[in-house]
Amino acid sequence: MAKVVKTVLVGLGNVNLGLLKILIDKSEAIAEQYNTRFKIVGVVDSSGMAISEKGFAYEDLINLKHNKGKVNEITGFLPKAPEFIADCIEADLLIEGSPVNLEHDNAGIKLIKRAIIKGWHVVLANKAPLVLAFDELTSLAEQHKTKIRYSATVCGGLPVINVLSRDLKLATLQSLYGIFNATSNFVLQELEKGVSIEKAIKEAQNIGAAETDPSLDISGQDTANKLYIIMKSFSDFSGSIKDIEIEGIEKVTAEEVQQAAKANTQIKLVASAYKKGREWKLEVRPTTVAADSFIGSIKGWEMGIEIKSDLYESISLKNYEADPTGTCAAVLRDMLDIQPR
Amino acid sequence: MAKVVKTVLVGLGNVNLGLLKILIDKSEAIAEQYNTRFKIVGVVDSSGMAISEKGFAYEDLINLKHNKGKVNEITGFLPKAPEFIADCIEADLLIEGSPVNLEHDNAGIKLIKRAIIKGWHVVLANKAPLVLAFDELTSLAEQHKTKIRYSATVCGGLPVINVLSRDLKLATLQSLYGIFNATSNFVLQELEKGVSIEKAIKEAQNIGAAETDPSLDISGQDTANKLYIIMKSFSDFSGSIKDIEIEGIEKVTAEEVQQAAKANTQIKLVASAYKKGREWKLEVRPTTVAADSFIGSIKGWEMGIEIKSDLYESISLKNYEADPTGTCAAVLRDMLDIQPR
Repeated sequence: MAKVVKTVLVGLGNVNLGLLKILIDKSEAIAEQYNTRFKIVGVVDSSGMAISEKGFAYEDLINLKHNKGKVNEITGFLPKAPEFIADCIEADLLIEGSPVNLEHDNAGIKLIKRAIIKGWHVVLANKAPLVLAFDELTSLAEQHKTKIRYSATVCGGLPVINVLSRDLKLATLQSLYGIFNATSNFVLQELEKGVSIEKAIKEAQNIGAAETDPSLDISGQDTANKLYIIMKSFSDFSGSIKDIEIEGIEKVTAEEVQQAAKANTQIKLVASAYKKGREWKLEVRPTTVAADSFIGSIKGWEMGIEIKSDLYESISLKNYEADPTGTCAAVLRDMLDIQPR
Repeated sequence: MAKVVKTVLVGLGNVNLGLLKILIDKSEAIAEQYNTRFKIVGVVDSSGMAISEKGFAYEDLINLKHNKGKVNEITGFLPKAPEFIADCIEADLLIEGSPVNLEHDNAGIKLIKRAIIKGWHVVLANKAPLVLAFDELTSLAEQHKTKIRYSATVCGGLPVINVLSRDLKLATLQSLYGIFNATSNFVLQELEKGVSIEKAIKEAQNIGAAETDPSLDISGQDTANKLYIIMKSFSDFSGSIKDIEIEGIEKVTAEEVQQAAKANTQIKLVASAYKKGREWKLEVRPTTVAADSFIGSIKGWEMGIEIKSDLYESISLKNYEADPTGTCAAVLRDMLDIQPR
């Protein structure tokens, strides 16, 4: 008998829909290789929460969203504030896949905290709770002996967080440089072709890869959020998100990008972390790099990172994802990491 | 009190010497973060074996090698065949860091098998036992509930094996392309400068990165060994090392490399695995690639891999290591992975 993991989904957007599709496609492998079945006993969206002891069918939730339905239309809807879902149903695991909202995410954080206190493990694809309350959430989880995983929050399916925390064991980070936002990287590439920034952003939204609010991509805030999560996870950086100097690509012109290309360079929205004396210096800004450097080689929809450390010299990772499948697969990898085999 | 892991080192070459240096440099962090101390209770080299219940000092073993000494000169030497070391001392962990020898490694494999049967965990930096007896060793370990780790056998410190086996969970491999041998990659780069192949190989040996027998690098055999280990670890490939078509760089001329460069391409010694119908096709051969492709961007002493899968589309990793420290750190990462925290 497969072990049943009672799971609650927060958000029914691209990430959790993609996750449900993978759960259908790979259900046999999950059962065979991990002896596990994920039963969705609760769902939360902007309309409220619904619960089901016997579990929602994956297909029903996908169909609900395809028909532009909301959680308040399904059997199991509870007229209560979603942040109290951990008081309404028993579960093992919370998946936070709602859109990033740095302004008004107090309800989301309260929901996660109540889940941790109930002993649920947490997998996050949403960066906001980590950016707003990294220390609070990780120490609460430690206190309640639950696990928090969030490898999907940085560069989609690229295992940046996992490589840093599991493979670079005992290494001391010296510096890192990365391109963490594919939308802005794509926009810069379009500028080189002479396309206007407004048109390029529109195209990124049509492709569906831009954040719900694309200003997060263009302003460098999304990149800074990821840099913050990486540095909190792996280094002795103890500052806040406000310690990152952020400059977006709003003012970069097609002419500048084209001039750079002529000189065999590229203008990229680069996140960097390096030591200045004893302190970490964290920056996000448009930066001119050599076209044949690793950062310069990260094209269009790609994202990547170059990590320098005492033991491993230089390790570079990059990925290409045309759709959110890699991000959704990263959520599933975290869900399986939490479940002991 | 730190948990003491009784450890036996096989080989006192670059890998295990580098490991001992890291154990000294990071001993405090190992104790603090992992509550562990590795006590070296046995060492094996070509002269025989030596054992010590109270443990050899890391520094003494380093000094022994620096003075070109052998194990048969130290207190604790036993006049017995090294393959029986698991019968001569109690230990928890075997580190196999001897040079690759595909012709005559039966004694090495016997040593590992006796260790597994005694319940020792095994960390390999030496590829030969895996190439010669992958299935036998992994199933013996499963049977005796011991662990085998070998992330150091492929691309030094680059976590190729770990990313494939832990991060690409449930993904189905579609294809991979890689440069797994830095020496031959460096030699090809020297050819482009007009240096002769003999002189380039000599320089690689002076730098100390070539295998003890550089023909393994140049013939493509080392690359094939790594491709085999990857495919046995992560795919449904069930063939033997002999199923890999191998062509080395012996016949590549400076002129060819220079012609390629003029056409904005590069000749690289590429390992590839892709499906032909239902069967895997594995090859190692000099291949012309675009200079601005990921494989084309792997320069000189770098190594790297591009992995395509159903869930993660394209993930690429590369590293630069001027010395064996990354490989030694990968051995240590495996040693710590085996020890539960």
